[in-house]
Amino acid sequence: MKAIVLISGGLDSAVMLAQAIKDGKECFGLSFDYGQRHRLELRSAQALCRHYNIPHRLIKLDASIFGTSTLLSAIKVPKDRKPEEIATQGIPSTYVPARNTIFLAYALGHAELVQAEEIYYGPNALDFHLYPDCRSAFVSAFQEVANTATAQAVNGHPPKIMAPLIHMNKQEIIKRGEELNVPFKLTLSCYDPTPLGYHCSACDACSLRKDGFATAGVQDAALFN
Amino acid sequence: MKAIVLISGGLDSAVMLAQAIKDGKECFGLSFDYGQRHRLELRSAQALCRHYNIPHRLIKLDASIFGTSTLLSAIKVPKDRKPEEIATQGIPSTYVPARNTIFLAYALGHAELVQAEEIYYGPNALDFHLYPDCRSAFVSAFQEVANTATAQAVNGHPPKIMAPLIHMNKQEIIKRGEELNVPFKLTLSCYDPTPLGYHCSACDACSLRKDGFATAGVQDAALFN
Repeated sequence: MKAIVLISGGLDSAVMLAQAIKDGKECFGLSFDYGQRHRLELRSAQALCRHYNIPHRLIKLDASIFGTSTLLSAIKVPKDRKPEEIATQGIPSTYVPARNTIFLAYALGHAELVQAEEIYYGPNALDFHLYPDCRSAFVSAFQEVANTATAQAVNGHPPKIMAPLIHMNKQEIIKRGEELNVPFKLTLSCYDPTPLGYHCSACDACSLRKDGFATAGVQDAALFN
Repeated sequence: MKAIVLISGGLDSAVMLAQAIKDGKECFGLSFDYGQRHRLELRSAQALCRHYNIPHRLIKLDASIFGTSTLLSAIKVPKDRKPEEIATQGIPSTYVPARNTIFLAYALGHAELVQAEEIYYGPNALDFHLYPDCRSAFVSAFQEVANTATAQAVNGHPPKIMAPLIHMNKQEIIKRGEELNVPFKLTLSCYDPTPLGYHCSACDACSLRKDGFATAGVQDAALFN
């Protein structure tokens, strides 16, 4: 069964990809350059697709639509916040309006192109809590779009939107990744990496990653500043 | 009330824009360069926005995802077909997978950026009949996405997807356009225009346009080959 897998280069989508491959899916990696300050993650996405020997397509998006998210602007991303603090904020400054809807819309086109039956989308339980477009209601709504938008839908075979991590926390994802032998060293979670691709150690993504590995009792092979 | 208006440069979206302006909306034009062979329509989109004195944003899309639609490839678009013949085909070769989903996803981002309350999307009754992503079920499904995807949705103000032409035929749209003094000469419907921007007279879009003006008893001010 063919599956489009949205791959950011972070560890969640790496674990999702590893699981899909273990489950026998023929995977097609899809990543996006939207001018994110941590564009180095795309190198990780590419490395992961090479590691798993799957095709990888990189789509460049016009980012002018995305406004003032700290992921795109020169404004500093928040640093040195504890996991509890991150989890209890409102919509984070790293939220990018409609970004994930655009990602999934492209995935829908790519699914039709290769006749894929599934689209893997990787928000986790904390994303679910923080970001509107990481919730089950959004996934269900986009499934309705998939059920109506394309020739695949008209022919009775719309792709299924899979969100296998949506109720898993970082610790659980890391444990699953360890079981699946995910090459964590290839992944990049950081919002503000050094030019060489080291994790900054202090942004929200680094904080959550470090806490996740510590809680899971797993050694993180990625490089930290 | 602010409204994002998807403007192709064709006559339908021109009439839709004119109506929205007459209805007092503060309009923001949005168009897409997706490598369409009739990219000259974007000049029309720009001219229409200038005519109505509204901002216009052009988004360039990576078209590699869109596959083999005749709108993008070197394959010839169908010519010399009668309106009845066009209306009774299956999904046309000019269908572009997930294109309109991507357009609306970008519109959702733009709506959040300018805090627009409406998104105008212009499929007509024949599009409704021919293209999966021009049907009410698709519009309703995308409304669900809009209701869940963005900070606007979380704040209780998701933009409303407006599809005011979805049950109007070409003749009705042209009559409405005449009432609204739409500058038809600025619009370009053709899938295969000459380098100077004349309509080819023979593609499906030209055939439907010519039939629509004839049936409406209105003189078409656009240029034909």
